[in-house]
Amino acid sequence: MNRMNIQTISWQKNRIKLIDQTMLPQRLEYVYIRKLPQLWRAIKIMQIRGAPAIGAAAALGVYLGIRDSAAKNFQDLRRDFQKVRDYIGSARPTARNLFGSLERMESVLSRNRYRPVATIKKLLFREALAVIKEDKISCRRIGSYGAKLFKDKDVVLTICNTGSLATIDYGTALGVIYTAVKQGKKIKVFACETRPMLQGARLNTWELKRRGVDVTLICDSMAATLMQQGKINKVIAGADRIAANGDTANKIGTYALAVLSCYHKIPFYIAAPASTFDLKIKTGKDIPIEQRPSSEVTELFFKKPIAAPGVKVFNPAFDVTPADLITAIITDRGLIRSPYSRNVRKTLV
Amino acid sequence: MNRMNIQTISWQKNRIKLIDQTMLPQRLEYVYIRKLPQLWRAIKIMQIRGAPAIGAAAALGVYLGIRDSAAKNFQDLRRDFQKVRDYIGSARPTARNLFGSLERMESVLSRNRYRPVATIKKLLFREALAVIKEDKISCRRIGSYGAKLFKDKDVVLTICNTGSLATIDYGTALGVIYTAVKQGKKIKVFACETRPMLQGARLNTWELKRRGVDVTLICDSMAATLMQQGKINKVIAGADRIAANGDTANKIGTYALAVLSCYHKIPFYIAAPASTFDLKIKTGKDIPIEQRPSSEVTELFFKKPIAAPGVKVFNPAFDVTPADLITAIITDRGLIRSPYSRNVRKTLV
Repeated sequence: MNRMNIQTISWQKNRIKLIDQTMLPQRLEYVYIRKLPQLWRAIKIMQIRGAPAIGAAAALGVYLGIRDSAAKNFQDLRRDFQKVRDYIGSARPTARNLFGSLERMESVLSRNRYRPVATIKKLLFREALAVIKEDKISCRRIGSYGAKLFKDKDVVLTICNTGSLATIDYGTALGVIYTAVKQGKKIKVFACETRPMLQGARLNTWELKRRGVDVTLICDSMAATLMQQGKINKVIAGADRIAANGDTANKIGTYALAVLSCYHKIPFYIAAPASTFDLKIKTGKDIPIEQRPSSEVTELFFKKPIAAPGVKVFNPAFDVTPADLITAIITDRGLIRSPYSRNVRKTLV
Repeated sequence: MNRMNIQTISWQKNRIKLIDQTMLPQRLEYVYIRKLPQLWRAIKIMQIRGAPAIGAAAALGVYLGIRDSAAKNFQDLRRDFQKVRDYIGSARPTARNLFGSLERMESVLSRNRYRPVATIKKLLFREALAVIKEDKISCRRIGSYGAKLFKDKDVVLTICNTGSLATIDYGTALGVIYTAVKQGKKIKVFACETRPMLQGARLNTWELKRRGVDVTLICDSMAATLMQQGKINKVIAGADRIAANGDTANKIGTYALAVLSCYHKIPFYIAAPASTFDLKIKTGKDIPIEQRPSSEVTELFFKKPIAAPGVKVFNPAFDVTPADLITAIITDRGLIRSPYSRNVRKTLV
């Protein structure tokens, strides 16, 4: 398990260092970020992605954006902060962790309004590092709560990347699998390629193979066949935002897997930290869903056309799985099961 | 509708002329085939695909393979025929129409055993042309039976290519849509891209746009979301082989759509000619399913890796939809509905 000493995002030598995930699996390359627009772009074009990793990026991004502020007083600092916050918030709309981090940083700002500007900047930096540190801990907790649900010889289907690369260094849904494997359980993973951006194909196969986990790649359309043939006995996915009633926005294709799991009577789990919950949002209907550029669909990954020029495209990056299709939500505070509205509140508040 | 005067496969100047479908949508290119191995390869690498089109290719291929036979008597001719038949039969295992055509050609051979070799060759040629002619008629019949099920303003989801390019010049499932549109009904089509070989993205968008049909491209994983949002009110797909009980093998991803349609209470139709039924096969369990090379999944379409090197891949080209998920099978002999075992027999025998 220690073969993978990489960290998705970190603060090094006064800059953000992150793995350029658009280059994987061909090359493990890093991007070094000193200026906020570079970070905004890294989030937008998905050099960094995965709700928890985006949350960390947003926190470090706030510090990056504010450290050179010429503000001499709190009012000016707050004005600069708000610009930075809104700018980062415009990069991607769905992942709750991004906004959660911005709110956390803002609360540090407000709580310390009577301190000197330089001190506030330092505290913001400290808070960003805390987000990173907490992600590591919460992933381990998710792993340990979730692993209890997994048995030796389980064959698990998953979608998108929810491992090291989606977090700081361990993962949510894949973190559960890593923990189960560490406990000595033999787990086989089927990875949905996850069109259009192929996080399953590009990132999961790379990451799972590095960690020595048995992985087989499929196209998203093949999941149903595996279920029909009885080859899958659990499905696990991550989350980008979870409403107060347990409805879960996650990578497009997750809802299909949830319906298919229900039809084939296979347990369907979501794994996510408390920071992915958005208790101000009552149901999945109100979760904002990002529409991504049509070229992601029409040009695959290589800027070569695979469809008739000018064809209309529907390309939502996420879908919403109603809570009643979810067997349990695995969080860093324990498992949450139906009735979700009550139990989400009980676990998180 | 007449803007599309192309024919997927034809016999011209003593050779087979076919559209190279691996070049679409970038270029409309033809392949000219004089020798059998070239045809075998064209079927194998999917320069020509779609069960009915493969059926036509197989019939013409038999003639191509047998016309230069040096056989002086029936026994020798039959021996050569059988080699040709087995060779063509090895190109792809699932599409019933391929084997149906081979059986048809063999029956012409047997029926005319007492005729001169040159006459038998001529009759085989005539039979191959008859396969092509009958495909045109049967597609129009499927279109006219099926169009009655479709109303003005229907929004229809489909998978793979089942239009002009999958048949001689009109299509099965898309033929139904073309007929409904011709009747003045406004129909919107959502086309699943159909990984791994992207027939929906590459061929449907090209063909539907040429015919002026309103088409929107989606990734396969997005179909469920459209259904959840109430944006789809019918699903229609083709078939590669249909068992005596109505179980239907079709492009991988079809079974998922059938389950999702059932869950969302959306009618799910299969459209196919009588020649796609295989009454010797009792249920879908016995339909041979082709496994295709893993590179189709790991290299997308451009021979560039999108997954970790050497990753295991599961790549069945087809899946089987149980008859009980099919609202009706639209054939050239009329609609077939449940109970299928009885009604398939009643309609086809």
